[in-house]
Amino acid sequence: MREVVVLGVGMTPFGIHDQLALRELFAQAALEALDSSRLEPKDVEGLFVGQCFGPFQEGQSNIAPFLASDIGLPVSAPATRFEGACASATVAIRHGALMVAAGVHDVVICGGVERAMATDTTLATTTFAMACQADYESPAGLTFPGVFGLATHLYASKYGVELSQLKKAMARVAVKNHRHAVDNPLAQFRKEIDEAKVLNGPMIADPLQLFDCCPFTDGAAAVVLASADKFKDRIDPAVYIAGVGQAHAGATYVQKDLTLAPARRASIAQAYAQAGVGPQDVDVCELHDCFTIAEIIAIEALGFFPDGEGWKACLEGKTALGGGGRPVVNPSGGLKAKGHPIGATGAAQTYEVTNQLRGLCGSRQVQGATVGVVDTLGGDFGTICNLILRRG
Amino acid sequence: MREVVVLGVGMTPFGIHDQLALRELFAQAALEALDSSRLEPKDVEGLFVGQCFGPFQEGQSNIAPFLASDIGLPVSAPATRFEGACASATVAIRHGALMVAAGVHDVVICGGVERAMATDTTLATTTFAMACQADYESPAGLTFPGVFGLATHLYASKYGVELSQLKKAMARVAVKNHRHAVDNPLAQFRKEIDEAKVLNGPMIADPLQLFDCCPFTDGAAAVVLASADKFKDRIDPAVYIAGVGQAHAGATYVQKDLTLAPARRASIAQAYAQAGVGPQDVDVCELHDCFTIAEIIAIEALGFFPDGEGWKACLEGKTALGGGGRPVVNPSGGLKAKGHPIGATGAAQTYEVTNQLRGLCGSRQVQGATVGVVDTLGGDFGTICNLILRRG
Repeated sequence: MREVVVLGVGMTPFGIHDQLALRELFAQAALEALDSSRLEPKDVEGLFVGQCFGPFQEGQSNIAPFLASDIGLPVSAPATRFEGACASATVAIRHGALMVAAGVHDVVICGGVERAMATDTTLATTTFAMACQADYESPAGLTFPGVFGLATHLYASKYGVELSQLKKAMARVAVKNHRHAVDNPLAQFRKEIDEAKVLNGPMIADPLQLFDCCPFTDGAAAVVLASADKFKDRIDPAVYIAGVGQAHAGATYVQKDLTLAPARRASIAQAYAQAGVGPQDVDVCELHDCFTIAEIIAIEALGFFPDGEGWKACLEGKTALGGGGRPVVNPSGGLKAKGHPIGATGAAQTYEVTNQLRGLCGSRQVQGATVGVVDTLGGDFGTICNLILRRG
Repeated sequence: MREVVVLGVGMTPFGIHDQLALRELFAQAALEALDSSRLEPKDVEGLFVGQCFGPFQEGQSNIAPFLASDIGLPVSAPATRFEGACASATVAIRHGALMVAAGVHDVVICGGVERAMATDTTLATTTFAMACQADYESPAGLTFPGVFGLATHLYASKYGVELSQLKKAMARVAVKNHRHAVDNPLAQFRKEIDEAKVLNGPMIADPLQLFDCCPFTDGAAAVVLASADKFKDRIDPAVYIAGVGQAHAGATYVQKDLTLAPARRASIAQAYAQAGVGPQDVDVCELHDCFTIAEIIAIEALGFFPDGEGWKACLEGKTALGGGGRPVVNPSGGLKAKGHPIGATGAAQTYEVTNQLRGLCGSRQVQGATVGVVDTLGGDFGTICNLILRRG
């Protein structure tokens, strides 16, 4: 397998884009990624796009060929839509990277795009809940705040943590990620919040309150991947896709213990093995903090902290920029404050990690970062996908 | 890249399955494919599934992990949903085949599943139309009968064919494919029809009449792909995935001439080149006859007949079983009579071509077939995907 470099990245501002079609949003990010790669659309041999709710948002299935055509890719380029709920874009990037590694293509563009129907919370929540299992879970009323509310109670009881202490740790995740987002010009929320604001927020799904939850977001992001042997001289420092992983889990009642996220452990193990690194080597991680408890679960399953101790690390600020620990988690602001356009999230995480490894992140830069992890979760841990990036 | 064999195939009867969930339908086909491969679910390293309208049919996004979990795949197996409208399963199989060829996996299961909402024609037609471009085409009222009605008029006028003659040729496509399906125990319609029945049917979208159109269908199909070096001794005769292709086109107004299907020409060229064969070598072809005119367009774009002459070949019965010509087209009955469960169609085509190359098709067997083509079209020619299979 050949080495794969990230040649360029692009991303729209995250927030509300109710005047732009999915095609227009994606084109902004994709053309920026091509520009920053100093490539023309005609040079691109394939499109790999994550997209989740376009059929509901715009009545658009089969979106990939239209996205490819609009940015001017040659007809011979396969254009493929990947849907794995919130992990859609990471799954798309993983497949694009493997196609380049295998020699099927020399240059591909990968990314994601979503409009979150934020003007209609009921529609958005109902539609998003379709990523739960539709025979037994969603008809029983399970939505994602519900899934992660249950996970919070399970975590507290399983590890014998007082719920009030756990909620304090979760509040610190929210405070940290909002603090990070202040320095991210593309983030949806660039306002600091304090712990009291989180703990006094409206109840959403016990014990999750409003500021434990990520927002509805519109946006797009894209990355250009290329074979290192032919293209690495175009970029300095070069950032490589050093490892990828993807795994699955069944419905919640099959997984038995949501706090363990077994699919994530299987996925990141694949990626660590391929990259020849371990959790101790990771400097920066963009992970799936759709809810504050999700960040705690993730830093354990990714191997950064022992099971049952992630909450303490968050309480102590070990994963914050300037906290002195490694890895720094979600310097972009994460899903929580940068925003979470479902099908685009993995591409935005890859955008951030790439720029961190290139040292381009200004006041939110993780100094000297050489290894970065992308972690994205789709549904109630049903789809997990990971990427490991390394500065060359 | 390694050689890839089709180790086993499975398929449900096509028709109405309104008492089965997508998960249950897919499991039938997938477990049959595993049984016929003499493999256990634990041996499978990845699931690649085509699925189009599950979010509308059952409120189910993120379906791939649930399908994988239900048939017992290991958590470490990536489970990925591909959506390219009617070409979804072929796109899934192409990606699965490339992953095996690249050495990422040794054994994968690929396939597709769909329930077509046949009890509600308006809902089905509206939902299916989402595979047209949603900004300009579907809001203007374009549905797929409309797309192929337009293509019929264009074909007649461009090549100076009397519409009545063209319609007679189209009717013969319908008669042929219904005749073929009589011998296919899994086909939705196993009844012969005659030319008069087609030409006297209700008008659907001028000039397409009812029997020019494929039906709404529920069903699933699956194939197990494996690396030839490790697995080819398990099966005799072995059938190889010798070449794959995929290409894209923009909206109808971008393509300019639907009768040329430029994405299909790009896709099949990739597949022919990889397989080292040409159209003259093809013995059997399962192609995308969603409407009778679509078969005429396809046999030209795939290179079997010169542009503007496909209608004559159909009129003369050259592509029928027993017609003496090569390739035989749609011996399964095609989408027209076997049925067309959107996201499953490409897997059912691969099922048929595999069984033809193994000589297992009984009274509909294409004698001595050694090279077969799968051709699947998504949307208004937006996504095209091809596979070339060869008996070893």
